[in-house]
Amino acid sequence: MINIAILGHGVVGSGVAEVLHRNGQSIAHKAGDSIAIKRILDLRTFPDLPYADRFTTSFDDIVNDGDIRIVVETMGGLHPAYEYVKACLLAGKSVVTSNKELVAAKGDELLAIARENNLNFLFEASVGGGIPILRPLDQCLAANEVTEIAGILNGTTNFMLTRMVQDGMEFDEALSLAQSLGYAERNPSADVDGHDACRKICILASLAFGKHVYPEQVYTEGIGAITLTDVQYAAACGHVIKLIGRVVRRDGKIHCLVSPMLVPDSSLLSDVNDVFNAIMVRGDAIGDVVFYGRGAGKLPTASAVVADVIDEVKHLKARKYLCWEPAVPDYLLKHGDYETAALVQFETDDPAALRGELAAQLGEVREVTYDDAPADRVAVLMPSMTEQALTQALDAISHGKAVSRIRVADL
Amino acid sequence: MINIAILGHGVVGSGVAEVLHRNGQSIAHKAGDSIAIKRILDLRTFPDLPYADRFTTSFDDIVNDGDIRIVVETMGGLHPAYEYVKACLLAGKSVVTSNKELVAAKGDELLAIARENNLNFLFEASVGGGIPILRPLDQCLAANEVTEIAGILNGTTNFMLTRMVQDGMEFDEALSLAQSLGYAERNPSADVDGHDACRKICILASLAFGKHVYPEQVYTEGIGAITLTDVQYAAACGHVIKLIGRVVRRDGKIHCLVSPMLVPDSSLLSDVNDVFNAIMVRGDAIGDVVFYGRGAGKLPTASAVVADVIDEVKHLKARKYLCWEPAVPDYLLKHGDYETAALVQFETDDPAALRGELAAQLGEVREVTYDDAPADRVAVLMPSMTEQALTQALDAISHGKAVSRIRVADL
Repeated sequence: MINIAILGHGVVGSGVAEVLHRNGQSIAHKAGDSIAIKRILDLRTFPDLPYADRFTTSFDDIVNDGDIRIVVETMGGLHPAYEYVKACLLAGKSVVTSNKELVAAKGDELLAIARENNLNFLFEASVGGGIPILRPLDQCLAANEVTEIAGILNGTTNFMLTRMVQDGMEFDEALSLAQSLGYAERNPSADVDGHDACRKICILASLAFGKHVYPEQVYTEGIGAITLTDVQYAAACGHVIKLIGRVVRRDGKIHCLVSPMLVPDSSLLSDVNDVFNAIMVRGDAIGDVVFYGRGAGKLPTASAVVADVIDEVKHLKARKYLCWEPAVPDYLLKHGDYETAALVQFETDDPAALRGELAAQLGEVREVTYDDAPADRVAVLMPSMTEQALTQALDAISHGKAVSRIRVADL
Repeated sequence: MINIAILGHGVVGSGVAEVLHRNGQSIAHKAGDSIAIKRILDLRTFPDLPYADRFTTSFDDIVNDGDIRIVVETMGGLHPAYEYVKACLLAGKSVVTSNKELVAAKGDELLAIARENNLNFLFEASVGGGIPILRPLDQCLAANEVTEIAGILNGTTNFMLTRMVQDGMEFDEALSLAQSLGYAERNPSADVDGHDACRKICILASLAFGKHVYPEQVYTEGIGAITLTDVQYAAACGHVIKLIGRVVRRDGKIHCLVSPMLVPDSSLLSDVNDVFNAIMVRGDAIGDVVFYGRGAGKLPTASAVVADVIDEVKHLKARKYLCWEPAVPDYLLKHGDYETAALVQFETDDPAALRGELAAQLGEVREVTYDDAPADRVAVLMPSMTEQALTQALDAISHGKAVSRIRVADL
């Protein structure tokens, strides 16, 4: 029998306890040993649970208990999760976490401590919730040069964008609906501003390309500025708007960003709707592979955590594979050097003069319009150029002001 | 250094040699040891290859060579692949295969031999080509009750159906195109008649539900009877036709079948086009997860084989997880007891009388039609009932003859 502890009995932690309790027999069969929850750390008590007697409010009860071999961290947030996980690893316990903020900020350090102590530190649930992605990515990586990863990594914003595209809802209405359904927090910044997606693409980039990428290194743009006008222009040229986290390797450097992007209707990612997530991995031998499923939620996320726990039980004396090195300088391409096509909307008093100026400056550009498009707008698909060059080109236009600029993803 | 041998230098085998040769350094890093191809079994010689000196025409050179620890079988077909793989396992060598026919027919026996000899027998490439599916499925299974697996498992037929749906090609024309592009064999029966998809769903069913399912136990219907009329009726009711392999567990029994099915436009599987494959796994905690990618081709398949080889190098002294038990009687639901809705087309001289008869016999049924539909046809969506009941209901109709019957998949 292997004793474990759970730090935090919130949505995910309670799901982990529930799955371990409910499917205990088949899990024991899979793990080759039974798994007992010895302690659950939470300030609250849950007297009606069959394992009510395992609750404690003291972390010391867990870190100092030599019988506890594996600790599951599902508290979320950076502190005290970081201090607790580090203390558990230093005390000789393997750790499983679903905490993307922790892994994105401290993954390199915690992986190094785990390695030095011949322990495992696994975090499948931190990206894509229940979707198996980190292990399959590791498998793709084994025989492939992976060149790119791109995905819809945040279910809340994908739900909101789906409502805007399919139901013509305004942003604020879509946000209210997401909040009323429990998909968005009262303070929705982590989702809406792209921070959650950024943490996930950092974890994927670190694993795929071998060196830690920190969220603060990554250009991150949320969906707060997306309007129904944007959605309609996108539809008019055969695209939908999705919040995409993307990392590309080119010439030994990587470029990583989070941004709303126009995804062509022909791409599988364009059909990933509501709270679903999908992650595309592009490799030299394998081509494109996509992993799709529920990126959040109590039971999907808990099932990924429990799969990691089972893996750690099976490898109590051996190291698992997931690993990367500390960050190095000059590893990330400057955002200004990133090349992308873009859909740009200009506000103008003189559409004819603007069209003439665009043609003179940029040669042939493709104009996009739709029935009932605002009369004072001209929207064009700008050809691929660097972010810096695009900014300069837009600044140089005198007969109109660029009021919206959305990257086009060639996915 | 770990010595391996490759049986068969065809499409997949030559890809395996190429990937191991080209990415040798990064593969050695992943595997923790370098991998050397000591022997390649083939009747042909390839004097221009950098590893031309490793070729042999004698299997004895491989099975009797104690230095060879891992054997890759990429010959295809049941014989002599079965005898060779069995002999290699009995000689203490771990085996990797891409051969779905072998695994579907002999998986239980070969897995048992591997287990008895503390060796590994892995076959990720046998389903979904380069798509990681067997390991992720094993991971899904660890913490989930999987209830259903359904997928587009054959790229050739999916390419043909895509051409029929998107380009209005007739079946024969689509087949000729697939043959000229090298997607279909001159004798296309294994693909077109569903045998290839059948082998793959057998492997998935065996792994997911723990007992071997043989291809001859599985109701298998190919796409040979699908016409453009079928495609148009499907479109008229918001569906596309896909060749689906499906296994469902209900009340301790499983039902497994391969058949063309109507997939709703809203399903992600409806957008899986051309030679791509996609496999959906449905679990109690995780919900629906979909794995998508190239299901065939030299390098995608080779990359899955090489990932297995790396895994075996890392586990030369430990057993990996993939496993199932021998078949048991009465484990499969009888096909006649399978419940499904269906789109049925009747040929009739008297549509009005037929409509009256259908309404009298079945209550309200939904009729489907489209511009230019054949005048002598009436198509209806039959409500969900058992295969047996459906056959009886159709036989009882006197004012029309059922000339097409396509299952509807609730995917």
